[in-house]
Amino acid sequence: MLEALFRPQSVAVVGASQDRSKIGNIILRNIIASGYRGKLYPINPRAGEIEGLKAFPAVSALGKGAVDLAVVAVPAPSVLEVARDCGEAGVKALVVISAGFKETGKEGLEREKELVAICRQYGMRLLGPNCVGVMDTHTPLNASFAAGFPHRGEIAFISQSGAMLVAILDWSVREGIGFSQFVSMGNKADLDETDLIEAAARDPHTKVILCYLEDIREGQRFLEVAERVTREKPVVVLKSGVSEAGAKAASSHTGALAGSNIAYDAAFRQAGVIRVTTMRELFDLAVVFARQPVPRGRRVAVVTNAGGPGIVTADSVERQGLEMARFSRETAEELRSRLPREASIFNPVDVLGDARVDRFQVAIEKVLADENVDGVLVLTCPTAVSDPEGVAKVMAELHARFPHKPMLGVFMGGETMAGGVEVLNRAGIPCFTFPELAVGALAGLVRYGAIQARPPKEEVPAYPDVRPGEVRRILERARQERRRALLSSEGAAVASAYGIPVAPIKLAQRAAEAVTIAAEYGYPVVLKVASPDILHKTDIGGVRMGLKTPEEIRQAFWDVMESATRHFPRANLYGVEVQKMYPKGVELIVGMTRDLQFGPLLAFGLGGIYVNLLKDVAFRLSWGLGLREVEAMIRETKAYDLLRGFRGEKPCDLKAVVDVVGRVARLVTDFPEIVELDINPVFAYPEGAVAVDVKITIG
Amino acid sequence: MLEALFRPQSVAVVGASQDRSKIGNIILRNIIASGYRGKLYPINPRAGEIEGLKAFPAVSALGKGAVDLAVVAVPAPSVLEVARDCGEAGVKALVVISAGFKETGKEGLEREKELVAICRQYGMRLLGPNCVGVMDTHTPLNASFAAGFPHRGEIAFISQSGAMLVAILDWSVREGIGFSQFVSMGNKADLDETDLIEAAARDPHTKVILCYLEDIREGQRFLEVAERVTREKPVVVLKSGVSEAGAKAASSHTGALAGSNIAYDAAFRQAGVIRVTTMRELFDLAVVFARQPVPRGRRVAVVTNAGGPGIVTADSVERQGLEMARFSRETAEELRSRLPREASIFNPVDVLGDARVDRFQVAIEKVLADENVDGVLVLTCPTAVSDPEGVAKVMAELHARFPHKPMLGVFMGGETMAGGVEVLNRAGIPCFTFPELAVGALAGLVRYGAIQARPPKEEVPAYPDVRPGEVRRILERARQERRRALLSSEGAAVASAYGIPVAPIKLAQRAAEAVTIAAEYGYPVVLKVASPDILHKTDIGGVRMGLKTPEEIRQAFWDVMESATRHFPRANLYGVEVQKMYPKGVELIVGMTRDLQFGPLLAFGLGGIYVNLLKDVAFRLSWGLGLREVEAMIRETKAYDLLRGFRGEKPCDLKAVVDVVGRVARLVTDFPEIVELDINPVFAYPEGAVAVDVKITIG
Repeated sequence: MLEALFRPQSVAVVGASQDRSKIGNIILRNIIASGYRGKLYPINPRAGEIEGLKAFPAVSALGKGAVDLAVVAVPAPSVLEVARDCGEAGVKALVVISAGFKETGKEGLEREKELVAICRQYGMRLLGPNCVGVMDTHTPLNASFAAGFPHRGEIAFISQSGAMLVAILDWSVREGIGFSQFVSMGNKADLDETDLIEAAARDPHTKVILCYLEDIREGQRFLEVAERVTREKPVVVLKSGVSEAGAKAASSHTGALAGSNIAYDAAFRQAGVIRVTTMRELFDLAVVFARQPVPRGRRVAVVTNAGGPGIVTADSVERQGLEMARFSRETAEELRSRLPREASIFNPVDVLGDARVDRFQVAIEKVLADENVDGVLVLTCPTAVSDPEGVAKVMAELHARFPHKPMLGVFMGGETMAGGVEVLNRAGIPCFTFPELAVGALAGLVRYGAIQARPPKEEVPAYPDVRPGEVRRILERARQERRRALLSSEGAAVASAYGIPVAPIKLAQRAAEAVTIAAEYGYPVVLKVASPDILHKTDIGGVRMGLKTPEEIRQAFWDVMESATRHFPRANLYGVEVQKMYPKGVELIVGMTRDLQFGPLLAFGLGGIYVNLLKDVAFRLSWGLGLREVEAMIRETKAYDLLRGFRGEKPCDLKAVVDVVGRVARLVTDFPEIVELDINPVFAYPEGAVAVDVKITIG
Repeated sequence: MLEALFRPQSVAVVGASQDRSKIGNIILRNIIASGYRGKLYPINPRAGEIEGLKAFPAVSALGKGAVDLAVVAVPAPSVLEVARDCGEAGVKALVVISAGFKETGKEGLEREKELVAICRQYGMRLLGPNCVGVMDTHTPLNASFAAGFPHRGEIAFISQSGAMLVAILDWSVREGIGFSQFVSMGNKADLDETDLIEAAARDPHTKVILCYLEDIREGQRFLEVAERVTREKPVVVLKSGVSEAGAKAASSHTGALAGSNIAYDAAFRQAGVIRVTTMRELFDLAVVFARQPVPRGRRVAVVTNAGGPGIVTADSVERQGLEMARFSRETAEELRSRLPREASIFNPVDVLGDARVDRFQVAIEKVLADENVDGVLVLTCPTAVSDPEGVAKVMAELHARFPHKPMLGVFMGGETMAGGVEVLNRAGIPCFTFPELAVGALAGLVRYGAIQARPPKEEVPAYPDVRPGEVRRILERARQERRRALLSSEGAAVASAYGIPVAPIKLAQRAAEAVTIAAEYGYPVVLKVASPDILHKTDIGGVRMGLKTPEEIRQAFWDVMESATRHFPRANLYGVEVQKMYPKGVELIVGMTRDLQFGPLLAFGLGGIYVNLLKDVAFRLSWGLGLREVEAMIRETKAYDLLRGFRGEKPCDLKAVVDVVGRVARLVTDFPEIVELDINPVFAYPEGAVAVDVKITIG
């Protein structure tokens, strides 16, 4: 896929110029300098010769099928004509470097749409416009105007920012970090992150895929592709723009807690994508993923010649969610017999300040051989007898003998360590100056190990018992009455139609009617004011609980109506809703808000009136949500501790709670017009669970 | 203070040797190489000449008062004799490099104690033993066996790990980071972190004090000194050993939540010390503290020539608790008129990829001049026309014109940026490759700004109404009965004696007695089983609430006794305690556990049965705790949001809650035998607060 972009047989540079300060010329020279071995054609209306190559007036002048890839660097107004010419000539892929499209306003946007239409018409794929270009170090090809070409390596970097790409290129060359592909996506008019991740996944030279993203163009397609790709290769993303664009006026708890950043988090988690928040992490992870194996677990052994830095490393192991390995008795005995008496043979293994290479050799070999160890960090500090180069050589040798366990170096110091660092670099063992960075990189490997080993994608349950017809009728009625908020009784009916157990509730227009309903349900009951205009009823005294007699109901009816009228004089009051009162269980919230990019975003957590205070809520996209993932979502919350039976209480019916969440997911998938939903509380009991208050907003 | 250690007029190296591989020789050469200008005497029993200097058989051979500082590198068994000889000769300070003391076991510990005794006897201060030595770049003096000498600078580094010190030295030389002092504390037999922080505070060349600590020797003294020092100079500490030494069997909620790491956190916070968790942070902060001014606030302006990296920086600003500045209208107008139309004149200011130095100049100058801006980050990426060196020069010039606003650089790239980075280094403007590090450094400056500007240390309130006599009697009785846990009624009496409002509670041995007490209090009441052996009464059904009639009390009495006997057949049952039932208020916990190092550690947070689940608890040491700090502690919790009136509820009586915490602090300070205390819940009301359950454990 995208062979024409990354491995074209022939390339044309449209807008090539004899003027060396012009971008068209720079691109041509970059392609030549990168060692590109295919055919290369400068295109310039005045033809002649450019950089020693014969130029042509147009791509079509080369004849049909002569060019796989055209790199376009002409002024924006000429791009469409060039694109048509390329299309006629059978070009397979265009890289449009030129700016002057969507990013410049309305006219540019029109031009961009037309460009895409032309590409579609001729079946050409398009990178850009307004991009830096594309590089593949294995082809090799540098079809960009960036200065420099990366070292050959196994990392693909896909960037939505051209400046970022150029800066990273410059940095990586000095740091000696190698890449397979470098792609600048520009305006993403056609090819976007999903296409390019898919291409990198198929590229045999790429082991790790890095992205810098500002947005995702097609949420669903991204999720599908990334979920598949991350089973084979790690995808690490730095997504910028964490602050929400203005606080939105959310009418639900879920809406108030969620936001597009949380939706992105959920999307990346569900797709197995590793999201980082700093550039440093992005590249530390890339290097370690490219060069070290994925460990089987999170048990780390540390070998050090210095106590203090060893403790700092152990702290970091704990802080970053890894575990200090406990050695087997054999390992401990071997270390005891072969290291000096003062050495610490527990983890971290301290071979002491007077250690020479031999002690490192013993310690590293023994801990690598221990099956209770999943990965090894070797930490050396400068001492009178230290020999960083020797230690590095031993590490390289042992890494070759134990290739399935990741090994990283922490060589603390400056010039003294330079030789050792060099040896490690050559051996593919990442090396850091400070322990926390090495631990962070190892933690990334462990994290990817869990992602890669996850079970196959689940089936979404079928729920053959759902009754969409009923829901459709209720929503239709509300729409006709131009109500955005459903009544509690309607919400309950919707939930019930989807198999969610609800506390029965009915509308009563008069007090007498309320008494009749109560007699039907049995006492005690709850009265709630019924009005499409009043969402948070409790706050205005619109709810009365635990009513035990007809007299109490009549009194409550008038109290509630009076209070509602006082707070919302213009509210449309339908009467009250009478609900059977259930004993209090563990209070949960199950909610949904709709994300523009990714669709329904589900929330689960501690319910009740303190939802927004405690913020104990986990999120998932409803996309492909199976019950295993629902359970994982529940486990992330403190509510889960309550469900398991906190402080000696009976455990609750987890299966019933999972079922409620699963059915909500199905409901909001079936009905896109439901824009927000809060079930708060859901009471969970040792047997079963019941939805007590269902708020639904339609759009 | 410690002049003899850092600025001695004369130095003797005891154990100096002609053999260049020996530590004694290395130290001598290090002193010479560092350019030390005082008198220098090699001491060796065989005398002769060493490294061109006349050697002496003993320090005393030089005559009384001839030597200020003796650096001792002889085998451990000879150290005591050397120390006595130095004492006789009037030496003022000893640096004992030799190992073979406390770190080697019992014999070594004895030797160390004797060494300290000798130093005390002669009034000598002692650094070490088992240390690398001491350096002062301004004296200059390198009295250590470390290879190399740091660049001259304004950072003091005090390390409990010799290896760490040597590694950092090596690293800093290559990075070009300068230091004023480097101190290796070794076993801290005499001089410890507190002494050395105090010395660095008085050193005119030191602007920032960095510590690597594994423990603190004297908690109280450290707190007092650090609280004072941090008002003048920043103290940044990396304290290792975050994992607790085994889970302790805590009998209180507070005990279960707290631990020595939390006590250290509280200590550092209360003393104004900045605690970091990584070595990278330690040095990033040091550099920025040494070179840039403390800003007045946290409003950051970002000037960039690249959009993507600008967004990443803005994200980081938000994530690290800083704020993107909003420019004044004048600034916006100036930028609008002097930058191209496509430039973003809002924050981040994007001067665009085709910007040359002039646009950076305009943008940086205008945002620096804006009074809504407290600090500036300048971010440059490589472009076709970028001139990092030129931008750096402009920054240096503008920094000189606006010396009171911190300015930092983010020069993203490699070789392209090297010239610019060099210029910034010379101008004292810290420069980073990735934005998050620069933001982190700026956040550190802002944090120190708040520390420095904090109001003077508060008075601890006097509480003239406390009645320690009553408490003493209750504790005495429990001690005589060999009970570690007080009864609820005793706990309430203790709290009450210290002016804490409590829900009245009395012990009843028989059901009839319980009924009498209830009549006295008025219904409803609560019954709790009374036994020194049962701590968590609720868990075993040992509590009955809301009893409204004598009959209910009689029934509850037998229920509770039966349940207690069933769960704890061997428990010593005193009967029940009858307590007046209070209406439910906001449920809080106020607790205390005693830290070995720092004394009473107070806890405040959300109370009730979910304390351990929600873990919404803030901690403070009782040391010097005033009411302003108590309020700050309360504000850290979510409980504070409830106290302020969550979701339309009436605000609670914050003053009453603060008073409870303050009085608990006084109580546990007056009675060191109280080892743990939990008041859970304290009910807070719109008027007043009341302690409902007071658990006290004595040791």
